[in-house]
Amino acid sequence: MKGVGRVVPAPEAPRRSFLRNALAVAGGAALAGAARAGDPAILKLPPHSTGLGQPVAARGYGLPSVHEKNLRRRESPGLTRVSQASVSFTPLQGLFGIVTPAGLHFERHHQGWWDIDPTQHRLMVMGLVRRPKVYTMGDLMRLPSVSRIHFLECGANSGMEWANVAVPTVQYSHGMLACSEFTGVRLSTLLEDCGFDAKKGKYVLAEGADGSGLARTIAMERALDDAIVAWGQNGEMLRPENGYPLRLVVPGVQGVSWVKWLRRLEVGDQPWYTREEVLHYVDLMPDGVHRQFTSIQECKSVITAPSGGQALLDRGYYNVSGLAWSGRGRIKRVDVSFDGGRNWKTARLEAPVLPKALTRFNIDWVWDGRPAILESRAIDETGYVQPRIAELRAVRGTRSIYHNNAIKSWRIAASGEVSNVQVD
Amino acid sequence: MKGVGRVVPAPEAPRRSFLRNALAVAGGAALAGAARAGDPAILKLPPHSTGLGQPVAARGYGLPSVHEKNLRRRESPGLTRVSQASVSFTPLQGLFGIVTPAGLHFERHHQGWWDIDPTQHRLMVMGLVRRPKVYTMGDLMRLPSVSRIHFLECGANSGMEWANVAVPTVQYSHGMLACSEFTGVRLSTLLEDCGFDAKKGKYVLAEGADGSGLARTIAMERALDDAIVAWGQNGEMLRPENGYPLRLVVPGVQGVSWVKWLRRLEVGDQPWYTREEVLHYVDLMPDGVHRQFTSIQECKSVITAPSGGQALLDRGYYNVSGLAWSGRGRIKRVDVSFDGGRNWKTARLEAPVLPKALTRFNIDWVWDGRPAILESRAIDETGYVQPRIAELRAVRGTRSIYHNNAIKSWRIAASGEVSNVQVD
Repeated sequence: MKGVGRVVPAPEAPRRSFLRNALAVAGGAALAGAARAGDPAILKLPPHSTGLGQPVAARGYGLPSVHEKNLRRRESPGLTRVSQASVSFTPLQGLFGIVTPAGLHFERHHQGWWDIDPTQHRLMVMGLVRRPKVYTMGDLMRLPSVSRIHFLECGANSGMEWANVAVPTVQYSHGMLACSEFTGVRLSTLLEDCGFDAKKGKYVLAEGADGSGLARTIAMERALDDAIVAWGQNGEMLRPENGYPLRLVVPGVQGVSWVKWLRRLEVGDQPWYTREEVLHYVDLMPDGVHRQFTSIQECKSVITAPSGGQALLDRGYYNVSGLAWSGRGRIKRVDVSFDGGRNWKTARLEAPVLPKALTRFNIDWVWDGRPAILESRAIDETGYVQPRIAELRAVRGTRSIYHNNAIKSWRIAASGEVSNVQVD
Repeated sequence: MKGVGRVVPAPEAPRRSFLRNALAVAGGAALAGAARAGDPAILKLPPHSTGLGQPVAARGYGLPSVHEKNLRRRESPGLTRVSQASVSFTPLQGLFGIVTPAGLHFERHHQGWWDIDPTQHRLMVMGLVRRPKVYTMGDLMRLPSVSRIHFLECGANSGMEWANVAVPTVQYSHGMLACSEFTGVRLSTLLEDCGFDAKKGKYVLAEGADGSGLARTIAMERALDDAIVAWGQNGEMLRPENGYPLRLVVPGVQGVSWVKWLRRLEVGDQPWYTREEVLHYVDLMPDGVHRQFTSIQECKSVITAPSGGQALLDRGYYNVSGLAWSGRGRIKRVDVSFDGGRNWKTARLEAPVLPKALTRFNIDWVWDGRPAILESRAIDETGYVQPRIAELRAVRGTRSIYHNNAIKSWRIAASGEVSNVQVD
């Protein structure tokens, strides 16, 4: 269900309390009126209120309601040549809070996904280490473990917007984004276990076991900071599409470095310049130069409801809701504008507000029925302020794919229809 | 996969650094040795490292690996007469962190579960209110929403242990426990919207739409504090088995008050004394008196790995892991004993540590191969210390079902087998 429904019009009387009055008209039909209208919930008990339902453990592993089938991760057709090297997007418009259900977590594969047998999987740690080792999953899961909630964003998220391609929904504009609780062993613990060369070892290569042999260089200071070799995601083992049984978690860094189906770590004294850090995942600048190793996902936010493709069915109160995040730490504040950036109000942040994790924000709004432009602007604990697209384009041009963290604008038409617009 | 695997024996050399030495023997085979042993991951690339895998969005809604099929919520056969009025338990022994995957969330139904059409569902608010109302789901989801992470524990969790029935696994002894991020409208917002009588209104009745008509009284101060009328759980809509589309969330309070398929709220001036607060969910005391309205789930903890039914395959390092929680607020500290409560060490708490939420703890342990008894003891921010079973029995006797928050003991045999024991 979308969080957008029918309301009665806003009252014309002067308002004493914004919220109280807004609620008085937004929330629910008066009981007498509903009864007159023949509300079936009042006049006749439904079968589920009289009969015997399904037993416990009818499904050893539970699934969403049949009424939620429309909420799916979806591929953007034609984005890549084959669906094994494509993307499916998280349906942010229908999600709540900060936890992304594993079943709706976006996918970005380079040669398709596999369901690898964990008893056969191995992780090799080699290179500038005194004790190169091969770990079984059993070995790894015996080690000291940590659990942390972190966001995961593809570096190409919102990439279509550089060139002013207004994709219709937040699922396609911002849906290469998720947030989960990850459990695993610190990368630093593994490197210590193998006796890595703390003098010469400046970089770690992480390599996946899929056919693309995806590999990325991680700077040693980042590897030793908060990176995790993870098997757990949202309480259970990783899903096959998310790298089961082992994935590298590099908090704050773009998703491509969170190597799935992790099979090898190598300590070296210089970057590897792999295909995925030379040919792709580089930022094309206006002068034709590529910026490399721009890994951090800078502070960003987006309103998820209402958002493109949804519709406001009438005037009145709305809870405007969205997500904010920063690869540099915690979100400090989120401001929301209802007039395309002229005036801003500070939104409520939902607890917990964690470093390098999604933060949910909410703000009250009464729509007067006139066209409006909704925007959110996040500020992180370093003081960095999410930029407008014009500011980004002044530096980066329009031919980039990666690292677009611009303020997102949604236009509300007088009809209530919400669409994707770019406001410089 | 269980977090319990093969290890090489602990070294006999004196230890300089506990962790470094423990790790040096626990983590992974030396590379040369593994290669000699003909490790398939080294000598021959598996199909998933050479072929083309599954496309994105192969499953619009993702599922766990086929290798994880053994991790299921399970009914305890014979616990009740029919499976529609029974329990299925969360498999805590195989979970990580604090988020419980919705598909493995325990169930406790009184007349079975239904998958209710949200467009037909209504919530009525009535009684001592100036404006009784009937809300559609659309009405509710338009209201100001909050998101909070909270634990949910059935009051009867660990109930078998009052009478010294040692059920074999932590799934059956403590598995009526879960923790999720809930999203919804504050109950106080709804009551305010309906103009509740702040003078006479001392209690709120919450009633479910299932055939059992389950209803519970909530004290007004609790209703106005942090209770939520929730539709969201772990980012998506509630699952049918967990009350889709609407459930009451009463943080810190036993699960029966978290009314599923919520259809009615009534404000009154005294408790209702419903069946589920007179006949059941009362604490039988040694003198035959029933204690009523003992709703808060007091501070409690349990080691989930290693736990009953698992086995340590060899001596050496283990990461001992468990969960702690308190209905009164945050967990302050968790201590772990490896000798049945004679000596205690303080465990590491994983972030975030949130009020009325599960907290994950971890602690290092090197098993010397001799019998051992593992216990955890939680302390919450009020200073309350989780009691031993003997202390509880001295007050409550042995005929209770509800509110057993005693320290749990797991016995490690010399064979490595882990079993449920009670240590006074």
